[in-house]
Amino acid sequence: MGSIDAAERTTTGWAARDPSGILSPYTYSLRNTGPEDVYIRVLFCGICHSDLHQIKNDLGQSNYPMVAGHEVVGEVLEVGSDVAEHRAGDIVGVGLLVGCCRNCSPCKSDIEQYCNKKIWTYNDVHSDGKPTQGGFSGELVVDKKFVVKIPEGMAAEQAAPLLCAGVTIYSPLSHFGLKKAGLRGGILGLGGVGHMGVKIAKAMGHHVTVISSSDKKREEALGHLGADDYLISSDEDQMKAAADSLDYIIDTVPVGHPLEPYLSLLRVDGKLVLLGVINTPLQFITPLVMLGRKVITGSFIGSMKETKEMLDFCNEKGLSSQIEIVKMDYINTALERLEKNDVRYRFVVDVAGSKLN
Amino acid sequence: MGSIDAAERTTTGWAARDPSGILSPYTYSLRNTGPEDVYIRVLFCGICHSDLHQIKNDLGQSNYPMVAGHEVVGEVLEVGSDVAEHRAGDIVGVGLLVGCCRNCSPCKSDIEQYCNKKIWTYNDVHSDGKPTQGGFSGELVVDKKFVVKIPEGMAAEQAAPLLCAGVTIYSPLSHFGLKKAGLRGGILGLGGVGHMGVKIAKAMGHHVTVISSSDKKREEALGHLGADDYLISSDEDQMKAAADSLDYIIDTVPVGHPLEPYLSLLRVDGKLVLLGVINTPLQFITPLVMLGRKVITGSFIGSMKETKEMLDFCNEKGLSSQIEIVKMDYINTALERLEKNDVRYRFVVDVAGSKLN
Repeated sequence: MGSIDAAERTTTGWAARDPSGILSPYTYSLRNTGPEDVYIRVLFCGICHSDLHQIKNDLGQSNYPMVAGHEVVGEVLEVGSDVAEHRAGDIVGVGLLVGCCRNCSPCKSDIEQYCNKKIWTYNDVHSDGKPTQGGFSGELVVDKKFVVKIPEGMAAEQAAPLLCAGVTIYSPLSHFGLKKAGLRGGILGLGGVGHMGVKIAKAMGHHVTVISSSDKKREEALGHLGADDYLISSDEDQMKAAADSLDYIIDTVPVGHPLEPYLSLLRVDGKLVLLGVINTPLQFITPLVMLGRKVITGSFIGSMKETKEMLDFCNEKGLSSQIEIVKMDYINTALERLEKNDVRYRFVVDVAGSKLN
Repeated sequence: MGSIDAAERTTTGWAARDPSGILSPYTYSLRNTGPEDVYIRVLFCGICHSDLHQIKNDLGQSNYPMVAGHEVVGEVLEVGSDVAEHRAGDIVGVGLLVGCCRNCSPCKSDIEQYCNKKIWTYNDVHSDGKPTQGGFSGELVVDKKFVVKIPEGMAAEQAAPLLCAGVTIYSPLSHFGLKKAGLRGGILGLGGVGHMGVKIAKAMGHHVTVISSSDKKREEALGHLGADDYLISSDEDQMKAAADSLDYIIDTVPVGHPLEPYLSLLRVDGKLVLLGVINTPLQFITPLVMLGRKVITGSFIGSMKETKEMLDFCNEKGLSSQIEIVKMDYINTALERLEKNDVRYRFVVDVAGSKLN
């Protein structure tokens, strides 16, 4: 990787320049296609809630200019000499990561998302020392390990949200032995990840209960997304009636919340899977866990192996994400709306159909 | 069960009469041997820390007079007409439970310890409406399902602590896929359960680190119990050096404590198994769990199936618990000493060798 060419290759993306959260056109260099690289023209890129956090420096680790975007679907323009897996013209996807150490225990176990030296798709530094930049841009150069083929028959714009939100749901269900028909699952929080949770859990043959703090999303959950049940967490009678009934709960809530009410909903050996990065402590008392051998755990996106599996699974099941397609010149408005949860359920930027500079 | 005979059968145990924690002789009736019952003469009974809580009404649910004791080893005196599994003269054990509903999902899955209608060995009510009384007594009548044969070659007094402390350790290691050689485990807290944790984990072929708040138990852990490593949790450098190194931690601490330092010691997919009933909330932040797919869970004793397995495992490995044998007239002193953790590591009452009234 990192072969140097006399003529510098550039691309244009929409970058944040500071924590204000406003993106604007930015032209930067891209490395030439190394032996294991894939050079990709971006077609679509989903907007994930974590893009907002990065753009606005909510985690205090943002570097600018920053081109965000990690639900990237594109067309292969060129591949390196050691790339047999992809070829020009292929429709491929790139998710949250573009590098890992390849030597640690997680890397060797094909769970490279847990590598301590993983390289993020943007706001990170590539092994060539240059900043990584994401998918709100014309082109990307990505190591072949982190490029996945989009299955035949899957629409490119539909695939975008699967590359982060989709695999974030699929991975824990698969890893924790929950990918089997007949289970009863709960989805807590109905945003970009939560809506995908309902769809993927239903496609796995589960009985799916959406758990929400109010009645507002009932019609959406039951009528539109196809959930089987709707439970209002503030309704003590409903919660009591549903005690000991669920095999798992996927908890996508990104802010502090009590765990006891949800642990009580779980059966013996039930699993509470936390997907929201929450830096304020969460609490529980041990009898609730011990006396039902219940599990509190969490999960972070998924491996490339699981991403492939998940795409095939979604394609086979005809599962589609629910998206709102926008052009790049709408992205600042889209980010504002996303911050207010004013989207059903994922914005996808039509990058190839947008004027970027 | 519960066949009524003209001559009432009685036994004498040592009972708490109130929360003062003082035991004294108490004579009470025992049901006659029903078709599925086993009538047992108690030989030895271990003193578990939870006996203290029950005797002193620490959980607010104690009924008096209460004959505690749930690590019971005895000799079968008589069996009911439908008992083929045991016969007079057998040496058998009884643990924390003597009944369950047999119809719920846990009962049908042979994890009856998670049955919501389980009947505790003492301080509970049997299906005949009479109070259950424990092993600090001359005799017991117990449903055959909750009677386990002590393997040939295992000393009766050695078997006693295995029936609660032993299976409490064995069950989660077995259930969570940790019963395999080569793993690296941590034992947090070196009391009755913790010392058994070191022994059982070593017998499983694990590299065992005892984690303690001070240096006080180093010699005991390394020299005496055979642990491989000793880690002082207040030593930040030591804790940092040990980060990401353990496959599991068995946490036997019975009071509130932070979880973050221990979660940090776990590898990807590592498991923190809580065994202490703690009614003050424990805390953690989600990134520590998510970014390594770590598991916080707990476990409650073990099933009768696991108890059998555990006894065979310990017998095969020649594993012995470390006990101090006392007579019944020493039990009040033993309870005082246990409260101050002044025992290495389990008191066992020589019931058959004691004068009970």
